[in-house]
Amino acid sequence: MTSDTSNTADTPAAPTFDDILAAAERLQGQAHRTPVVHSRSLDAAAGMGVWLKCEQFQRAGAFKFRGAYNRIASLPAEQRARGIIAFSSGNHAQAVALTAQIFGIPAVICMPTDAPEVKVRATAGYGAEIVRYDRMTEDREALARQLADERGLTLVPPYNDPAIVAGQGTAARELLEEVPDLDVIAAPCGGGGLLSGTAIAAHAMRPSIAVVGVETEAANHAWLSLRHGEREKIDPPDTLADGIRTAQLGTLTWPIIQHDVDDVVLVSEDEVKEAMRFLLLRLKLVVEPTGAVAAAAALSGKLRRFGQRAGIILSGGNVEPEVLASVLNQAGG
Amino acid sequence: MTSDTSNTADTPAAPTFDDILAAAERLQGQAHRTPVVHSRSLDAAAGMGVWLKCEQFQRAGAFKFRGAYNRIASLPAEQRARGIIAFSSGNHAQAVALTAQIFGIPAVICMPTDAPEVKVRATAGYGAEIVRYDRMTEDREALARQLADERGLTLVPPYNDPAIVAGQGTAARELLEEVPDLDVIAAPCGGGGLLSGTAIAAHAMRPSIAVVGVETEAANHAWLSLRHGEREKIDPPDTLADGIRTAQLGTLTWPIIQHDVDDVVLVSEDEVKEAMRFLLLRLKLVVEPTGAVAAAAALSGKLRRFGQRAGIILSGGNVEPEVLASVLNQAGG
Repeated sequence: MTSDTSNTADTPAAPTFDDILAAAERLQGQAHRTPVVHSRSLDAAAGMGVWLKCEQFQRAGAFKFRGAYNRIASLPAEQRARGIIAFSSGNHAQAVALTAQIFGIPAVICMPTDAPEVKVRATAGYGAEIVRYDRMTEDREALARQLADERGLTLVPPYNDPAIVAGQGTAARELLEEVPDLDVIAAPCGGGGLLSGTAIAAHAMRPSIAVVGVETEAANHAWLSLRHGEREKIDPPDTLADGIRTAQLGTLTWPIIQHDVDDVVLVSEDEVKEAMRFLLLRLKLVVEPTGAVAAAAALSGKLRRFGQRAGIILSGGNVEPEVLASVLNQAGG
Repeated sequence: MTSDTSNTADTPAAPTFDDILAAAERLQGQAHRTPVVHSRSLDAAAGMGVWLKCEQFQRAGAFKFRGAYNRIASLPAEQRARGIIAFSSGNHAQAVALTAQIFGIPAVICMPTDAPEVKVRATAGYGAEIVRYDRMTEDREALARQLADERGLTLVPPYNDPAIVAGQGTAARELLEEVPDLDVIAAPCGGGGLLSGTAIAAHAMRPSIAVVGVETEAANHAWLSLRHGEREKIDPPDTLADGIRTAQLGTLTWPIIQHDVDDVVLVSEDEVKEAMRFLLLRLKLVVEPTGAVAAAAALSGKLRRFGQRAGIILSGGNVEPEVLASVLNQAGG
């Protein structure tokens, strides 16, 4: 890995808790207030109290709708009407496409030619125009910016944006409204949008709470960054948790995480699969691999040093049937 | 099949809606008030409004806890303290075992030697004593009655009991409290405990509602019974929906269903699997095959003739990992 030395002068200011409250008002009636699940068998397995914020039941199947909707709803109406563009092969794509459908505006989503067809279909199902690109030979950012310029579209970034971070923070706010006396709150960390929003919301509402990011061992850039005190970049990680196959934190999310997150913990691929099995078979909850990483931290005992009551953000449920089947076919559980 | 001519003089009176309200009071603080899920994509796929009562999130993973707890809580304290016995290899076993654990009383569950080990372990995990019997050579009822006599245990039947039926009716009552203006409510039908309780609750709260039972094509005894006007018995049915592998309705549940249920509809095995896939991949809900049969009726358009707004009881979520994986591995969906 290498440490990042790029100029961050363009980075906007971090959102505040007031921005999260404003996001919550915008999301009212649009985003679901997802349920918080508590289970005696999960408590017993984790050796602590665990409360699950179920963002797999969010619209478009993941927390990403919160940030995308907040970002797009914050645009001046005239700018928004010209349309939006995003590059993503995952949950951000579906969140942006759904938001565009709600506003009745054009959406262009740039997806790699080798993106899973099921995700392409889901995104197109919300009415978005899909532009395919070759991951090996084309620069997706350059492509998106060119299309944005040509058509007057606004780019909706996946995490490195204050309105995105503020939107993602509304999930932790709802969780702490429902279960105020948590000792620790844990969320998966890819680009850091969810984790930084969680940290801002949680520390504003409960200053004593520990905020913990969770990565898989292969996707450990935030864990490295916290330990080295600078924003580390890793090679594209090979992990089942496709939602956190990110090389580094953003220029906006890194300083928030550095100052406001208590620690990042790592879980193994097997711990993620075991957590998925437990959630499926014991709690009857479908989560995608990324959605299970924070639960895996709880189930493997890695959150107990932070206290006795953990809030866990199950970040999404959009999983390929083949991945679910392979998790179910494994021994154990 | 043959029609049943057994003497029903011993059959107790059907429960009333007041009995269901009394059951709801007993269940307060013990049973979960399970969530009702509504989804635009489900509405679009079904061509009507659909509301799902999620009993897979009930304690012990199925609606069965409602009836078992109500039955056992209704016993005189002295009789209850001597212990209870049941024969079941499925959700009733776990419900009875959990209730016994809650009351701190002995429980004996008679299970066939070829019952799935995962269900045996789950039942034993609640502290019940498991007595195995050979399905081919032993009479489980005679075995259970002998053990009951020897040890002073009370037999908790799976469906043919007014307190069981009243307990099961509390699920429909909660659903109609939350979504009062349904045109139709549908529930799976095996021995008829859930369906008859549903009918009593639903018609008391909303006389105009259509109450519909759902069976798989192979397990069509209630469908036959309604058409022939007498309680039909079929050979043990071969269906993926193991919770409704029942040969006939009970002497208590049959007259309730004959007088109070508007129709029984049949779904194919493939329709059940498609419904399970839809619930898993689109709604992120794990249901067992029996839990999906009423949803399969909605998704295959078989409830549209009853109106525009359907309430569906997803009856449980206790499914073998191999069964879930095989459903996921099928083409389509």
